[in-house]
Parts: sequence; C-alpha cells; structure tokens
Amino acid sequence: MKINITFPDGAVRQYEKGASALDIAKSISDGLAKKVLSASVNGQIWDATRPINDDAQLKLLTWNDKEGKSTFWHSSAHLMAEAVESMFPGVKFWVGPPVENGFYYDMDLGDKKLSEEDLVKLEKKMNELAKQNNTYIRKEIPKNEAVHYFSEKGDEYKLDLLEGLNDGEITFYTQGNFTDLCRGPHIPSTGLIKAIKLTNIAGAYWKGDEKNKMLTRIYGITFPAQKELDEYLHMLEEAKKRDHRKLGKELGIFTMDDDVGPGLALWMPNGAIVIEELEKLAKETELAAGYKRVVTPHIAKEKLYLTSGHLPYYQDSMYPPMELDGVKYYLKAMNCPHHHKIFAAEPRSYKDLPLRLAEYGTCYRYEQSGELFGLMRVRCMHMNDAHIYCTKDQFYDEFRAVNEMYLKYFKIFGIDKYVMRLSLHDPAKLGKKYVDEPELWKETEAMVRDVLIKTKTPYIEVPDEAAFYGPKIDVQIWSIIGREFTLATNQVDFAQGRRFKLEFTTHDNHADTPLIIHRAPLGTHERFIGFLLEHYAGKFPLWLAPVQVKVLPISDKFLDYAQSVSQQLKKADIRAEVDDRNEKIGKKIRDTELMKVPYMLVVGEKEMNENKVSVRRHGKGDTGAEEIPDFIKRISEDIKERRSD
Amino acid sequence: MKINITFPDGAVRQYEKGASALDIAKSISDGLAKKVLSASVNGQIWDATRPINDDAQLKLLTWNDKEGKSTFWHSSAHLMAEAVESMFPGVKFWVGPPVENGFYYDMDLGDKKLSEEDLVKLEKKMNELAKQNNTYIRKEIPKNEAVHYFSEKGDEYKLDLLEGLNDGEITFYTQGNFTDLCRGPHIPSTGLIKAIKLTNIAGAYWKGDEKNKMLTRIYGITFPAQKELDEYLHMLEEAKKRDHRKLGKELGIFTMDDDVGPGLALWMPNGAIVIEELEKLAKETELAAGYKRVVTPHIAKEKLYLTSGHLPYYQDSMYPPMELDGVKYYLKAMNCPHHHKIFAAEPRSYKDLPLRLAEYGTCYRYEQSGELFGLMRVRCMHMNDAHIYCTKDQFYDEFRAVNEMYLKYFKIFGIDKYVMRLSLHDPAKLGKKYVDEPELWKETEAMVRDVLIKTKTPYIEVPDEAAFYGPKIDVQIWSIIGREFTLATNQVDFAQGRRFKLEFTTHDNHADTPLIIHRAPLGTHERFIGFLLEHYAGKFPLWLAPVQVKVLPISDKFLDYAQSVSQQLKKADIRAEVDDRNEKIGKKIRDTELMKVPYMLVVGEKEMNENKVSVRRHGKGDTGAEEIPDFIKRISEDIKERRSD
Repeated sequence: MKINITFPDGAVRQYEKGASALDIAKSISDGLAKKVLSASVNGQIWDATRPINDDAQLKLLTWNDKEGKSTFWHSSAHLMAEAVESMFPGVKFWVGPPVENGFYYDMDLGDKKLSEEDLVKLEKKMNELAKQNNTYIRKEIPKNEAVHYFSEKGDEYKLDLLEGLNDGEITFYTQGNFTDLCRGPHIPSTGLIKAIKLTNIAGAYWKGDEKNKMLTRIYGITFPAQKELDEYLHMLEEAKKRDHRKLGKELGIFTMDDDVGPGLALWMPNGAIVIEELEKLAKETELAAGYKRVVTPHIAKEKLYLTSGHLPYYQDSMYPPMELDGVKYYLKAMNCPHHHKIFAAEPRSYKDLPLRLAEYGTCYRYEQSGELFGLMRVRCMHMNDAHIYCTKDQFYDEFRAVNEMYLKYFKIFGIDKYVMRLSLHDPAKLGKKYVDEPELWKETEAMVRDVLIKTKTPYIEVPDEAAFYGPKIDVQIWSIIGREFTLATNQVDFAQGRRFKLEFTTHDNHADTPLIIHRAPLGTHERFIGFLLEHYAGKFPLWLAPVQVKVLPISDKFLDYAQSVSQQLKKADIRAEVDDRNEKIGKKIRDTELMKVPYMLVVGEKEMNENKVSVRRHGKGDTGAEEIPDFIKRISEDIKERRSD
Repeated sequence: MKINITFPDGAVRQYEKGASALDIAKSISDGLAKKVLSASVNGQIWDATRPINDDAQLKLLTWNDKEGKSTFWHSSAHLMAEAVESMFPGVKFWVGPPVENGFYYDMDLGDKKLSEEDLVKLEKKMNELAKQNNTYIRKEIPKNEAVHYFSEKGDEYKLDLLEGLNDGEITFYTQGNFTDLCRGPHIPSTGLIKAIKLTNIAGAYWKGDEKNKMLTRIYGITFPAQKELDEYLHMLEEAKKRDHRKLGKELGIFTMDDDVGPGLALWMPNGAIVIEELEKLAKETELAAGYKRVVTPHIAKEKLYLTSGHLPYYQDSMYPPMELDGVKYYLKAMNCPHHHKIFAAEPRSYKDLPLRLAEYGTCYRYEQSGELFGLMRVRCMHMNDAHIYCTKDQFYDEFRAVNEMYLKYFKIFGIDKYVMRLSLHDPAKLGKKYVDEPELWKETEAMVRDVLIKTKTPYIEVPDEAAFYGPKIDVQIWSIIGREFTLATNQVDFAQGRRFKLEFTTHDNHADTPLIIHRAPLGTHERFIGFLLEHYAGKFPLWLAPVQVKVLPISDKFLDYAQSVSQQLKKADIRAEVDDRNEKIGKKIRDTELMKVPYMLVVGEKEMNENKVSVRRHGKGDTGAEEIPDFIKRISEDIKERRSD
C-alpha cells in the first residue's frame, strides 16, 4: 500500500505506508539522511524515525531549521540526564526543555551540590554516551503503566507531571539506559551530538514558586560539529567584549538613572550625534522615496486607543493612564493612531495616494522590569516609523519599495545576514483569528511573497502566525559576530483603515478605504544603536562616529596650529576636536584609540612648517602625511557616501 | 520745607513739600507734563496730582509705561460709567478694571439689554464728557460715610465691596457727575482721553459664580490720540486676517483632534517642514556656539521632581501621575531635571565647563482648558531648550553669548521691536522670597545689566519679580502688525545645581557647584510658529516655506518638461512641486498664490524650447524668464543665507 507525500515545493511522491521521514530522506540521498533531525508532518513536529501511515505534507528538518535545532537540544537534555543519572543514581528529574541557545534540565539531587568539576565530568560522560550512538526509542504507554513505572522509581516529580495527562497522550522515550516521560520528538540517535558544553549551574524553584523546593538547573549547549561549538564560544567571548552596555558607557553614548526610571535611556552627547545621523539618513531616504514627515504628541485620550483596538487588548504593555477632569490620557505605545488622525484631517482623493507619513516617533511600552535589558529591552523607544496609505493597486510597488529600503540600509550598515519571516494567515480561521477578508489575504500575501522572491530577499514562511489584521514580516538580522536580533516588523493592515473610518475618493467618485502598511526599517534607536555598538564593537564608521577626527599636537607649542587644523575641519562640517591636554603624544594616541575615533591627525614641527597633518587611521596606524585640503576632500566624500571602511 | 526727589537715573532734586508728580513734571517741561498719566512713588502707583510730602523715589508714568496705560484705561472705565449713568439712571456698578488691551465695567442694568446702537450712543456721550476735561478728584472717606453714600444710592454691589474694607483704606474718586468707590490711581483729567471705542458687550456672572445674577459687561479701549485708535483697529483687522488658527488650517500646518485631546497639536506635513527648518537653524547656531545635544525621555519618576522642587509646588501645571508597581511617573513639564542628570552622569572638571546641553525637548503642561488657545496656549510644547553649566567667572561671557543668539534670531525673523524684562530680587527678601545668596544676586544682576547695556539691547528692569533661584529675563517681541508676544524666558539659577548635588572639580582640586543658565531663544515651536504665521501672514520667507517653488505647466503638453525642472530643483535640495492638475494656468496661479508659495515657474512652449522658466515671485508677479541653473543658484543662496525678501 502506498501513501502520497507532498514536499514543501509542492512536489508529490509515493512511498510505502509506514515509511519514516528518515526513510524518505534516504531515498533522496544518504547525505540528506545524515542531516535529518526531525520532520514536520502535516504541520506537527515528529521523530524522523516515526512511521507515516497516511498521505501527508512533509518537511524534513535539519540543523538549519529552528525546529530541527530545538529537537537536537531537547535530545541533548535527555543525554545529559542519562549522564547525570549514571553519575548520581537516585536523582529525580523535573523538566528539561530546549531554549533559545541550548537546553537545561531541572533536577533534584538531594543534598548534592554540583561543582564546576562535576560539569567537566558530566561533559565527558555525555561524550562517551553520545559515541555509543544509541537510538531514541519512542513508546506509547497506558497511564497506569507510566504511573507504576515512576512510582517504583519513587519519582514524585514525574508523577506530578502524569497527573495532568490522559491515556493515549503519554509517551516514553528511551536512549541507552535512560527512560523519560516525554512528548518528544527526538533526533534519531545520540551519535549526531558531536560537541557538548555545559555552561551553567543555577537554582530554580520547582514550578517557579519560591515556596517550593529549590531544584538544580544545569544549562548546556550542543552542536553537530566541534567547529560550530568553537565558533559559538568565540562569539560569546566577542559578545562580552562588545557588550553594548559597557561600550555605551565608555563611549558616552547613553546612561540610565534611577530617579528617571528603569528602561528610560538618557542619550549623552555622543549618543545624540549617532541618533542625529541615523535620523538624517532616514529623512534623506524617506524624502527621496516620497514620504512626508509629521510630528505628533506623545499622549492621547483613551478614546483614540479604544478606536484603534489597542485598548483593552494591549493595556498591559502600556503605562497606566493619567486621569484628569474625567478624561484618561495614555502615553502612546505606537504612532499609528496619531498618523491615522492626520490622514483623516483633510479630505483625501485617489490623487493623494499613496500617502506616506513618516515620524521618528517616541513610544512608551511598559516592559516588565525583569525583562529590561540595556538598550535592547526598554520602556522608551524612538521608532523609525511610517505609515503608507495606498490603494490595492498600489500595494505591490509600495511594498517592494519598502523592501528595497531595508536592503539599502543593510548594505550601508554591512548587515550581510538577514531573513524576513513572513507570517501568513490560516484560511480556516478567517473571521476568528483573522479578519474576514479572504481575497485581501490571498492577494497581499501573494504580492508580498512575489516581492521577496523577485528581489532575491532571503525569507521563510510561517503559517498561521499573521497578525489579526494582515500578513506581517519580522525582520531578523545578524551582527557581524553572528548574534541574531529582531530589527523590526512590517505589517499589512486591512483593519485600522476601517476602524478609523479613513476614506479617499476613488477615480469614479466612490468612497474607499485605504490599505495601510506599517514599517520601521531602522527599528528603534534604542535597539538599533545597541545592535550597532555590538556590530561595530564601538568602532562606528566615519559618518556615524561622534568624533570623526582628533587633532593631536605633539606639544603645546603646536596647539595653535592644531586649533587651526580643527577649525578648517569644522568648517567642512567634520566633527573634529583638539586634544589640548598637557600629555605625552603616546598617551594622547592611546586615549584616542580607546575612544575609537576614526582619524587622528598628529601635528608637530614638520607638519606645521609644511602645512600638513600626519594621518593615523584607527586600527591601521600611521598612513603618512597629507595636505589638509586633500585630507578634508577625501574624508568628506567618505562621509557623504556613508562608506564603511 | 523741601523734600528730596530721586529720579530713575539717580539724579536727586529738591521740591516744595506737597508738590505733586505733575508739578514736578511741569518744572521739567510743559510737554512732559501733558504726557504724565500717573507716577510711581517709592514703588507705589499714585495719582500724578497727589501731593508728595516726604523724600521719595519718583518715576513719571506716561502712555509708554505699562502702568501709565493701566491708569489711563482705568480712568476710561470711570468715564464710561459716567456716560452709562447719565443715559441709564439707576444703574448699579460692580467692578471696572483695566485689562491687557483696554478696560471693562460690570454693571446691573436691571431689565435693560444693550444694543450695538447703545454702544455708539455711549461712545458719543463719553466723547462729550471727555471734552469737558473734568479732573479726577481723590477723597479719603471714613467707612461709615462710604456705607451711608451707597446705602442712599441703593447700590448693594458697592456695599458688598465695602464689607471687605477698613477705615483708612477707603477712597472715592469723582469726575464730573460721577463718583465711585475706588482705590485709584487715576489720570489728572478726562481731557487726556482723545479716542474711544467700545468693543463688546458680554454677560458676566457676579463674582464669576454662575449661581449669581448675570451682569452686563461692556468692553472698551481708549487712546490719547485718534491716530493710535485707528492703528489699533487696523491691527485688529490685520490680526483677524492673520489668525494663526485660520492660516494653520489653510496652509496645512497643524490640526487638533478631539480624540487626541485639547491643546495637543498634530503637525501636518507642511508644519513638520517648518519645524524641521527651525530645528536646523537652532542646531547649526548651537553647534557653532559650542553646545552639545542630548536626547531625554518624556517621563520620569516623581523623585526627580521632588529633588528639583517642581513637586509639589508646580503640580497643578503638570499632568497627573501614572502609578504602577508602587512608583509614580510624571510627564515632564520642563527639561532641566533630565539635563542635570546628564551633567551628573560623568565626573566633571573645570575643563569641561562651560557645558552647554541642548535639546528640542517636548514638555507637557496641563493648562486649564479655558485657557487653551490655538498654538499660543497648548499642553504639548516643543521647546528650544538648553542649560549652560558654568563657573561664576564664565557667567558674563555665557550670558552675553545667549543674548547675542537672541539678537541673531530677531534679525533672521525680521523682529524689529523687542524688549527684555529683567526681573530683579529685593535684598530685603533674601532667604524668604529669594534664595539667600546676596553676593551672587548682586554680581549676576550686575553682569546681566551690563550685557544688556553694552549690546544696546532694549530692556526694562522690574524690581522684586525675580524667580526664587535667580534673576530672570522675559523676552517680549512684537509681530509686524504690532501685537505683543512673550517669546521665552532666560533664567539664572543658583539653586538647582545644589539641589541636584551637581559638582565639578576646580582648578585647585576642590568641589564646586556650577551656575546654571536656562535659555530657549526660539521659545516653543507652538508659540513661535503661531507667532510667525501672524508675523508673516502665512507668507513664510523662502527658506522656511513648506513648498518653495511650484512649477506650473501651461498645459499637459509641458508636463514632462515641468517634471524635469522640478527634478533639477529637488536635486539642489529645493522643495519643489509640479501642479499637474488639468486646470487652466490662471487657476493654477491663483491656487498657488493662495498657498503663498514663494516662487512659481510657469512653463510653456517658449520656455521649453529655450530651456528656461518664467519666474513669478509671490506678491510681486512676473519677474521674467530665467535659465534654470541661474534660478537655482540665485535662490539656493537666498535659502542658505536664510534671507527674507
């Protein structure tokens, strides 16, 4: 008997009933089969070895898929548990999930306290067990058998988990000598785990409740090759050096203050320059792309957010209201409702569309204090926001232009790795999870996909994760050391136009509602400058650098000459400073290096007599003497073109 | 017996005891005496005819003094009352004060409703009575006599006023056939009132309480010459045409929206361009003057404002707090506390001073809804703010530079009439009304005065009106049609530095507290753009105009050429648009005139063939054909230099 297997590209092939994803992979190529970690079968993640008995949609999952990685790390948690049990018999386990980077397992080790040494031993044991290449075996178990098993073992934690489960949904997974109550899925065998690092030991209350017993949590991460672990550890080390909080302080970019409040960055002079340059870039780019700027207040009456639907739905993420004279005012958590009001302030016709309203709007969101983190998770954010009001016919071109703006920015900032996560609707949930506009969904999703394909933009599709009011794109970018950041979201919006009764007069004199695109290619200053600090390790490219040129007189004798050089630079709109301290030139150079100033101009007797400067490029050292006008001309061009090195 | 009279310039002259200010004026010149309306005697405003019996500081007050005008209008209210009583015997009067422009009197006319015609008759009567040139006679009256007088008259309103007064502080004033209970002072005689206009009739509840009887309020204004009345009425007419709310809507500058909230302007694209240009001007100017920019959040914890002292003192002018997790957050009503925190974020030495921190900070103040007025009185304001932290030795130069910045701006905006109101402390109130720093007060006041004199800046001194923490300067400017606006305040601050424990290390390694100057030469965008709309009657100078050049093709045949002209302009950073509507050229010109676009370029057959444009300057008409590069070069220079016409 045969079953039909449909692949992601739409191809359909026939296989024997009971074939597993791994069998199917083998039928394609052995190389592929070696990489398969799990499989998406009709949208559910399965063991790659689990037999498929009916026609199905199949996607083979590897290390390159988020779900593949999750399976790998989940199986690694079981491997760690096996090692722990072999070293500490009698240990009892609570839960051991995969996380963003790796996995952990919570366990009750009785009185035993783990040391760093224990971790090394455990790693060694895990490596041994991995080499045994034991298969992960799935077994469906009736509830009474499962309860019997863990009662025998005296494991009250797993018994507690079993309480919430029913017959028919209980599975055990076994590899080597370790069996666990587990929903799965798992990778085919332990031999796939080639590189192991246990990273941390922590305490964790059972069920997160501080009234409960404190369990031991071990964190780890594993990879399918040693090289990848090495790279990961290197990245962690680099990330530590590039920590945006550390650099932000050293370079005078931002500060936080308890009396102002958590998550509310104060931008110091150097940070304000970076902000100014980013806004200049955005304004130039948006002006050329036909945007118009607006300026809106940071508060509005409750009514505005009831109309938009953000209240009460989004209330927990907003600061509480200010109530006065019987009216509630909210700090804005998004700029769209204010922009809609500007659209509505004048009668609009099709001739006015597309209308693109842009603002670096400052929004306030009440992130939980536990979630605040430097500039990455904040409560005040300056957003590179704009809303495009257009007809359906204009949508394709508008969306394409937005996409091109992203790509332009990626090039300027040297962002080589990025991916657009396109979240789609589920037609079965129209009118429930998704606004009931079947045609609009189909058309806009097709147009968005088409743009991404035609522009060769890397993207992935995520079914059933769209917003209520339209498909959305989350933009993921990677810093130069390989860390992933969510930069921004693009959102197509069928709903807000109608909620705000926005209208334009069509060609044939009817009233129609515009489609709206929400977009913020540079995200927020907070997130983006945090990213840039790590990405550049604080060494901003010339055009973004708070101080672009530092003039260093060899001694006070040349201070006047240094000042005159600096004046010439400033006249050419170059951010220049003179190091007028009474210090040795070596110290001046070292201090300027620390502040990561792109250019140093050393001036002494020879330079003054020849009316020249000795140029030092940050990180490159001395590049020789130059005439001042030549130097100005050269770097002015680099600044104007926003060149990186 | 002689008394010593000290004049404002310090000169002392002797007069007979009992000489009045008018006598003293006559002794100087008859011309002066004719102008004297009242007098400041030891800081109190007196009738010019009242005998002076002791040594005194004397200032003669004329129409050019605020207090002189007030006296004039107060006497005019009495004149009006006399006219009313002669026309409507039995009328009872409540109060009749001078106001900013003119005066009013509240009265009980029984069932009589006044008409426009009555006003004309009243004006005529007032003119008659003025010509009689009756003197205003002051008489001190014992309380029982006063009560008797108004009881006889059956005037319960004046009796109510008398209840709050004691023997020795009750005076009557009589002119012609009219006597009033009045504190005074008044002008010498009715003949000084040469031009009279009653402007409005309104209802006003007695004592402002709607449970009381509705009285009739008549508004009027008077002048010492007909010419001045004519000018005033012309100004009112002009002001109506130039109403910033009307122009703001017509020109797409700003809008208000009920759902956002009163006093919260939404800046439309054209308004955002004006904002952008003003900020560019400020940033350029401040950069050249050595300021550094910062960016701070719009909220802070209650603690920040308790430290600054704004809470609880200033609480009523702030939006109410947002309370969450046991912390109160306030919307900022001023930027200083945030800037102080940036000063405090790094250790500072004398080498860092003066430190000038600038920000176009957005502040929120809860003005009473009855006081809101267009852009003039708002709740959200974008302030051209900066704080200068300096040593006492640096103060003079810093204050002088601030003053020069004001004068530079006045020149750019064609503000020819302005005055700095310098508010000084009263040494007798040190430690009570004023922070107890006698030396600092003396020194800074002297330095401020010295700057104003040396720079020939028009200024007046106002004793005993300084802020608690230092002398202040209110900057008054007049629009081209002669209306007065308060633009901004400069503030010297001895107190905040200490409250925030701001410190710098001195030359000799001690800790010292900086002086702080608060300054905002361009005021707020709201107030200043409102002013500019009236000042320019919406005809912004080229550099500020939202659209600088409109290209008008004579017919669709020349649309491509028009677009190419527009593209060339845009490339040169000129804000250009094409009128691509299918309209006659006459209509295109008229519509562009209405939008007050500085330049129109008309293009047709001839222009296209010769690669030229026909230039029309707003308000000046056709100025002939020009080569495109010539035109661009010419106006680019005007823009760069921010030239007015």
